[in-house]
Amino acid sequence: MNNPRIILINPQMGENIGMVARAMMNFGLSDLAIVNPRDGWPNPQATATASGAVKILEEAKLFKTTKEAIADLHYVFATTARDRDMSKEVFLPHAAATKIKELNEKSAQTGILFGAERTGLENDDIAASHAIITYPTNPDFSSLNLAQAVLLMAYEIGNAQTDMPDVQLTTGKSDIATKESMDNFLQRLYDRLDQNGFFKSNDMRPSIERNIETLFLRGQLTEQEVSTLHGIVACLSKNSVAD
Amino acid sequence: MNNPRIILINPQMGENIGMVARAMMNFGLSDLAIVNPRDGWPNPQATATASGAVKILEEAKLFKTTKEAIADLHYVFATTARDRDMSKEVFLPHAAATKIKELNEKSAQTGILFGAERTGLENDDIAASHAIITYPTNPDFSSLNLAQAVLLMAYEIGNAQTDMPDVQLTTGKSDIATKESMDNFLQRLYDRLDQNGFFKSNDMRPSIERNIETLFLRGQLTEQEVSTLHGIVACLSKNSVAD
Repeated sequence: MNNPRIILINPQMGENIGMVARAMMNFGLSDLAIVNPRDGWPNPQATATASGAVKILEEAKLFKTTKEAIADLHYVFATTARDRDMSKEVFLPHAAATKIKELNEKSAQTGILFGAERTGLENDDIAASHAIITYPTNPDFSSLNLAQAVLLMAYEIGNAQTDMPDVQLTTGKSDIATKESMDNFLQRLYDRLDQNGFFKSNDMRPSIERNIETLFLRGQLTEQEVSTLHGIVACLSKNSVAD
Repeated sequence: MNNPRIILINPQMGENIGMVARAMMNFGLSDLAIVNPRDGWPNPQATATASGAVKILEEAKLFKTTKEAIADLHYVFATTARDRDMSKEVFLPHAAATKIKELNEKSAQTGILFGAERTGLENDDIAASHAIITYPTNPDFSSLNLAQAVLLMAYEIGNAQTDMPDVQLTTGKSDIATKESMDNFLQRLYDRLDQNGFFKSNDMRPSIERNIETLFLRGQLTEQEVSTLHGIVACLSKNSVAD
């Protein structure tokens, strides 16, 4: 997957540009363009806050206008929270990341415009973009700083690219227990419970055993955890019955 | 939807705690718990960086131990990037937000643990959690600061709650054009093209008209945009044919 270009229009504070580089690097992005930065370029404060991500600043492309920064791109998103009285498609960040991935698969190069702190993007920059990205922020407190706005989009690009499953069970150094291991443990537990008079009536015994089996199967135990449970049962019952 | 509780364990810098409050407020979260903050509580530096989100700090609950901070919760996530040799389910942030929403629908209260800057969560805190959240970061540059980590989870909670569609067309003050408006415009365009000799052969005319119709329908034009196109066609053709 080709990275979308992150394009900062008239950024003001060097610290923010450095934090943008870090946010990009956190999620594997590298193509940074800077249009007309207020304090010139390079910017020592950007370098100071970028720490491990200085390479992204060193390779950043500098432009005088938005037009030049996006000329070689095929599809450009503008990030803005305000309604602009323009007829444009508005994407949530995760939907924009999906669109970027789809465009990439057609070898199209993409970019995302971010406006200056406080003022945001100008209408001309929005008109020059194919679509808009808007964050699902609290309407009463919607201001994200520049680096946070880039972080959220970089994160969604990372999400769209990751091969991590949505949910997975880590098992440390031990394997998941086989059904036979679980059955051996359950049989031992039932035997000891039986010896200690746990089952008051034979009628209820099958349903009680099903409940116990359900409880212990739900957690997907490891072989090591099954060993621990054997030890617990043996320990609890050692004074009451012969082991 | 009830908010998940955001629980900061041994946070160090007040600035970060203030930025956490802002990130929470950006996405409508309000329940903040702080366990054993290094510099005591309240913290003037936290108040300074929280700006508009000071109310979250004022209402934050202070605890001495993680155990107390999560005692009333039904399901607790621990955020960590490192593999801990424990058998736990590991969620991506968006999957965790979905799980939180599902638990909320069963009236279960949830919480998310965030460790101290640099050191992260201790194994005891992870063991005390029901599941783990891991961010899909670049393995070579995975360090997110505390406020960024909270921002990404708060954002995903916002995503899970928003009623904004994934993609929507904004049309500003004008309505989407009806098919009749589009047909009137297309008929006028074809007539003018015909008068100017655009269609070289009658055989090709139907397929050329289909291509033109496809082009103009793709963009879902507004009534105002159709007016603009009528004006463009009239203007371009005024010197060549009687209007």
